[in-house]
Amino acid sequence: MAGKIRVSIIGAGLVGEGLIRGILGHPNLELGLVVSEHAAGKSIGELLPALRNELKLAASSATPEEVARQSDVVFTVKKSAETFALVPPLLNGGAKVIDIGGEFRFADAAVYEKWYKEPHACKELLNCAVYGLPELFKEKIKAAKLIGNPGCYATSAVLALAPLLAGGLVEPEGIVVDSYSGLSGAGRQYKQELGNLFIDVDGNMRAYNTGTHRHTPEIEMALAAASGKPVTLTFVPHIAPLSCGILTTVFARPKTGLTTERLQAALRDYYAAAPFVRVLNNVNEVAVGNVVRSNYCDVSAQVVERSRQVVAAAALDNLVKGASGQAIQNLNLMCGLDETAGLKGRSL
Amino acid sequence: MAGKIRVSIIGAGLVGEGLIRGILGHPNLELGLVVSEHAAGKSIGELLPALRNELKLAASSATPEEVARQSDVVFTVKKSAETFALVPPLLNGGAKVIDIGGEFRFADAAVYEKWYKEPHACKELLNCAVYGLPELFKEKIKAAKLIGNPGCYATSAVLALAPLLAGGLVEPEGIVVDSYSGLSGAGRQYKQELGNLFIDVDGNMRAYNTGTHRHTPEIEMALAAASGKPVTLTFVPHIAPLSCGILTTVFARPKTGLTTERLQAALRDYYAAAPFVRVLNNVNEVAVGNVVRSNYCDVSAQVVERSRQVVAAAALDNLVKGASGQAIQNLNLMCGLDETAGLKGRSL
Amino acid sequence: MAGKIRVSIIGAGLVGEGLIRGILGHPNLELGLVVSEHAAGKSIGELLPALRNELKLAASSATPEEVARQSDVVFTVKKSAETFALVPPLLNGGAKVIDIGGEFRFADAAVYEKWYKEPHACKELLNCAVYGLPELFKEKIKAAKLIGNPGCYATSAVLALAPLLAGGLVEPEGIVVDSYSGLSGAGRQYKQELGNLFIDVDGNMRAYNTGTHRHTPEIEMALAAASGKPVTLTFVPHIAPLSCGILTTVFARPKTGLTTERLQAALRDYYAAAPFVRVLNNVNEVAVGNVVRSNYCDVSAQVVERSRQVVAAAALDNLVKGASGQAIQNLNLMCGLDETAGLKGRSL
Amino acid sequence: MAGKIRVSIIGAGLVGEGLIRGILGHPNLELGLVVSEHAAGKSIGELLPALRNELKLAASSATPEEVARQSDVVFTVKKSAETFALVPPLLNGGAKVIDIGGEFRFADAAVYEKWYKEPHACKELLNCAVYGLPELFKEKIKAAKLIGNPGCYATSAVLALAPLLAGGLVEPEGIVVDSYSGLSGAGRQYKQELGNLFIDVDGNMRAYNTGTHRHTPEIEMALAAASGKPVTLTFVPHIAPLSCGILTTVFARPKTGLTTERLQAALRDYYAAAPFVRVLNNVNEVAVGNVVRSNYCDVSAQVVERSRQVVAAAALDNLVKGASGQAIQNLNLMCGLDETAGLKGRSL
Repeated sequence: MAGKIRVSIIGAGLVGEGLIRGILGHPNLELGLVVSEHAAGKSIGELLPALRNELKLAASSATPEEVARQSDVVFTVKKSAETFALVPPLLNGGAKVIDIGGEFRFADAAVYEKWYKEPHACKELLNCAVYGLPELFKEKIKAAKLIGNPGCYATSAVLALAPLLAGGLVEPEGIVVDSYSGLSGAGRQYKQELGNLFIDVDGNMRAYNTGTHRHTPEIEMALAAASGKPVTLTFVPHIAPLSCGILTTVFARPKTGLTTERLQAALRDYYAAAPFVRVLNNVNEVAVGNVVRSNYCDVSAQVVERSRQVVAAAALDNLVKGASGQAIQNLNLMCGLDETAGLKGRSL
Repeated sequence: MAGKIRVSIIGAGLVGEGLIRGILGHPNLELGLVVSEHAAGKSIGELLPALRNELKLAASSATPEEVARQSDVVFTVKKSAETFALVPPLLNGGAKVIDIGGEFRFADAAVYEKWYKEPHACKELLNCAVYGLPELFKEKIKAAKLIGNPGCYATSAVLALAPLLAGGLVEPEGIVVDSYSGLSGAGRQYKQELGNLFIDVDGNMRAYNTGTHRHTPEIEMALAAASGKPVTLTFVPHIAPLSCGILTTVFARPKTGLTTERLQAALRDYYAAAPFVRVLNNVNEVAVGNVVRSNYCDVSAQVVERSRQVVAAAALDNLVKGASGQAIQNLNLMCGLDETAGLKGRSL
Repeated sequence: MAGKIRVSIIGAGLVGEGLIRGILGHPNLELGLVVSEHAAGKSIGELLPALRNELKLAASSATPEEVARQSDVVFTVKKSAETFALVPPLLNGGAKVIDIGGEFRFADAAVYEKWYKEPHACKELLNCAVYGLPELFKEKIKAAKLIGNPGCYATSAVLALAPLLAGGLVEPEGIVVDSYSGLSGAGRQYKQELGNLFIDVDGNMRAYNTGTHRHTPEIEMALAAASGKPVTLTFVPHIAPLSCGILTTVFARPKTGLTTERLQAALRDYYAAAPFVRVLNNVNEVAVGNVVRSNYCDVSAQVVERSRQVVAAAALDNLVKGASGQAIQNLNLMCGLDETAGLKGRSL
Repeated sequence: MAGKIRVSIIGAGLVGEGLIRGILGHPNLELGLVVSEHAAGKSIGELLPALRNELKLAASSATPEEVARQSDVVFTVKKSAETFALVPPLLNGGAKVIDIGGEFRFADAAVYEKWYKEPHACKELLNCAVYGLPELFKEKIKAAKLIGNPGCYATSAVLALAPLLAGGLVEPEGIVVDSYSGLSGAGRQYKQELGNLFIDVDGNMRAYNTGTHRHTPEIEMALAAASGKPVTLTFVPHIAPLSCGILTTVFARPKTGLTTERLQAALRDYYAAAPFVRVLNNVNEVAVGNVVRSNYCDVSAQVVERSRQVVAAAALDNLVKGASGQAIQNLNLMCGLDETAGLKGRSL
């Protein structure tokens, strides 16, 4: 072995913790720096007490130039203003960058600016950034230096819908994506407008950002790329009382003559080479409990005959296949490793 | 006061407990018998320990004839075979009957027999039975002697959709009802095929009975009655990790020109005289936490303009507005009481 | 009826919401003002959406003098600095005051100042304030103008221990109180030091304030009053992943010859006239689920013979018997009403 | 490498699933047979759907003789009658056996027979069986052929108390162990007497088996071995609304002069060579959330000065350090592997 790949992380929240676990459990990676300015000098075990004894490392306040010098790959998990400042020097310093955020998911800066309501400060990088959904864009990812790691909701919706649209099995109009998510997606900060206190969430469920959530254009963009046709759909995210996991149910109108058998065959074909998508026989079998803390996305689809409606479902862990696990899957591809290296079992 | 109305209950599970609470907290009712054959002679407080000190009464094994003699109104909460045997003698004995079950919800026995997969043993009573959804069928309920109390999912879906279909605001084809329910709807028995152990449900979510749930024809029947047109829709129920409450999200295609303003106005008009339906300004405000342990159903609807889709939502407590509370609301109407008597606050 | 008693509330958080429900559901009370300065003018239904349609009232910014003029009884639910400013004008204005807070629980200001780490600004009122635990101090409460409503943990611990100490059944040294509480006790504000986000609490349990919690001297004070002897004990509160409810387990050394039978008899004697304490036959039957949203405290105790240890347990709802329900029970006593008026069933 | 150690499992419930994960993620082990008679022939991924794609193996109905022939080590996870029948042929066949159950934890069969209320059918094996708590009995485990893997509660209590008793820091009389456990400890079967439905557990907490739980003599036996003196203590287990994890709080009377500093130093000394026990500075830091899905047990202890009481706490995952993780830790020791092999990170 020619030595391990050195990987650093900028940002030390919930996703950062998942990335650290992923790197520590990965046979080909070694952990470089964990940059957290407000916590610089503190031991990671003090910051993230579940990791005590797992590593001896203090949070760093290194500049992006220093991080690039010490790293082969860098994960950025910061708010957009900081991300826009970090990514150019990281790339210039020779590091590959995987950004966990919306900044580098859209080829068209105008879409970003409309939905994220702020200017895009790194437009010049968009033509080299790749949307990091390995099941759809594996070859581009292998060649990429900059990845926009997909959103958690978007991953679930795109994995459920891409085979249906790419195969021309459903009408591209009138598609509905109804998602329920656990709270790990909201991170460790209090978000009053969301309501992420225990007392807000336990025993409760409700929609938020109905029809206006930022993952809407991301889902549409990926599906358009997968199917070659524009898609405009309705996305309604909900908060559910669980720590982690997303369950997405998708409704679409079938093309004439579509059967459940053909649907399922299309899913199995589409994901024949995808190690982390498990195609199940029945929508009722797609359960959050079977995917949490793993990098799997379980999917299924069926035609409800009496109402001629396609119902598809996808379940994943928002912090793993929806964030850190998918990021490592992208790293594996970018670095020529086995796509599944360090990602089997429940290691994140 | 000419004396209280005497009300008995046959069945002592979760719904029976809610009915007991509802009767005890009701200014015009007194509790007659609580019939539970397997527990006959045991004190109710021993059977339902949360009710200790609230009443001094033992479970009874009275025959339906005896129950009818001692009661003005009887709630039946039993499996279908027993219900079919109980209801005729109760009615013959002069009692009004409110059945918490599917047996008397359908005017057409063939629908019952198809979806419940068993013969209907009381067909002769179907022409006098009334579907007990007060917001749609108040006058019929007032005159009824036998009520089929609506299902919990059905109540939520019908209350969200009836104004839209009755007002001709949405297309009757292609409607989708996506529901998430807490576990109180499954009662206090272990149901292996559902998976209602804590270890099955906590941290989990999944669909069940996709496209085949028995509430599907009930929703369609009530909506057809409300709108005068047949409706065939897709209903997908899910299990969510909470004890009580249902959140139902409905998707429908708007008629040309429909706006959120007109939608909301239609909801407010439709429910102007409905004390237990609260029309909210935004789908995002419809939250299970605001309705649990109350008889309210909160609803809202909006048009998502960019995808031209109507999204409506309804939240209720499956055991209250979805069972015992609605049953008492029906009783109030059948007995000439104020519709809200005993139902304000969180008393069930 | 000589007219209803007019009751106002200063403070509109979780406890305020419980008090509003309690007043609305009470046959002898009417709701006066709900004072919330930061929300003045907003409708209560907007502030507390579960209460929409239950009342038509806007939050008020009335001065304490105005509140006193319009009220027979006032509940104060504010931080200590505001409480110290409010209570004198309320009393001077002729209102009876029930304070939900630590300010008026201790006859000795020095105890308050030591544990609450701030000066007591109303020492002159302490000799007229009564500790509002009705099961121990009913006669004093009946005559009181100012009540210090007990803490939730303290209520559970004192109700479990008072009969044992008053009856001389256990040693007063070495008593341990181990409590687990749901999150409603922490209110609707984010408390970073406690960690009350969903992501902090779900799937987690831990102690906090081990040996230093402010309810420690309150428990000791009430038990000393009940038994006539000083008590110094160890109290460890824990956070548990539930919205409401406290389970307290108490360990004490039995006096020679004590049996479970004598223990249980002592509990039953002590609470013979207490409508809201239910003495159960077995510690294993004391369950949070049987008391939540009620004003009951379930208690039991037994001697574990092989290790000669008394184990006692108490369960209550921290917002009801631990706050608003107990406050209304105190009001009932202070106003000559039936102790249970408005408090049966699950109305809070 | 001289080839991997071949490990089989008899029993395919929750613990079996953890053992499979542990073996799959372990660099030195390979999975042999997974024996489940009622499921023989079914693929493991069908039985345990979270494991789909992780392994291609069908459940086996092999006899113990066959299992022994094909395995270096066998984990037995069955009820006692089956275990007593399985272990002799496994040992005779040359396999090492780690039993996840109470059968081989007690050197004295009479203790087993008294607390488990049934005859011990393998008394002749008790003198060679070793209690598998590596932090206390590492050398014996290394040499053992048959391990009684400790109970989950017992592991937490013993790890909190052993240093205090072995160091003579606390009185051996009057010790109290108060534990709260998640539901994974109850497995995937319905247990009516325990109440493990979601509707029983969510929003609830209560004690069970107060003073009579079978782990009581196990805790006492291990502590007597650790300290050289008999111990009789009080153990109260509780059910808490979480899927996995145990929090145990221990109360003991300190010997004269004991300080928190000395206590903590004793813990650190005692666990200096224990890779999976993390000694924390404060009881308040011991949190279930930091240990779930890991093999760590976090412990701390302090002296509450004003009441002269020692409070100690331990948190662990009942299925990992309390079952499958500890079993693999024992296997590592028995097979001469690094004690931590396959057990870092969250892999179970």
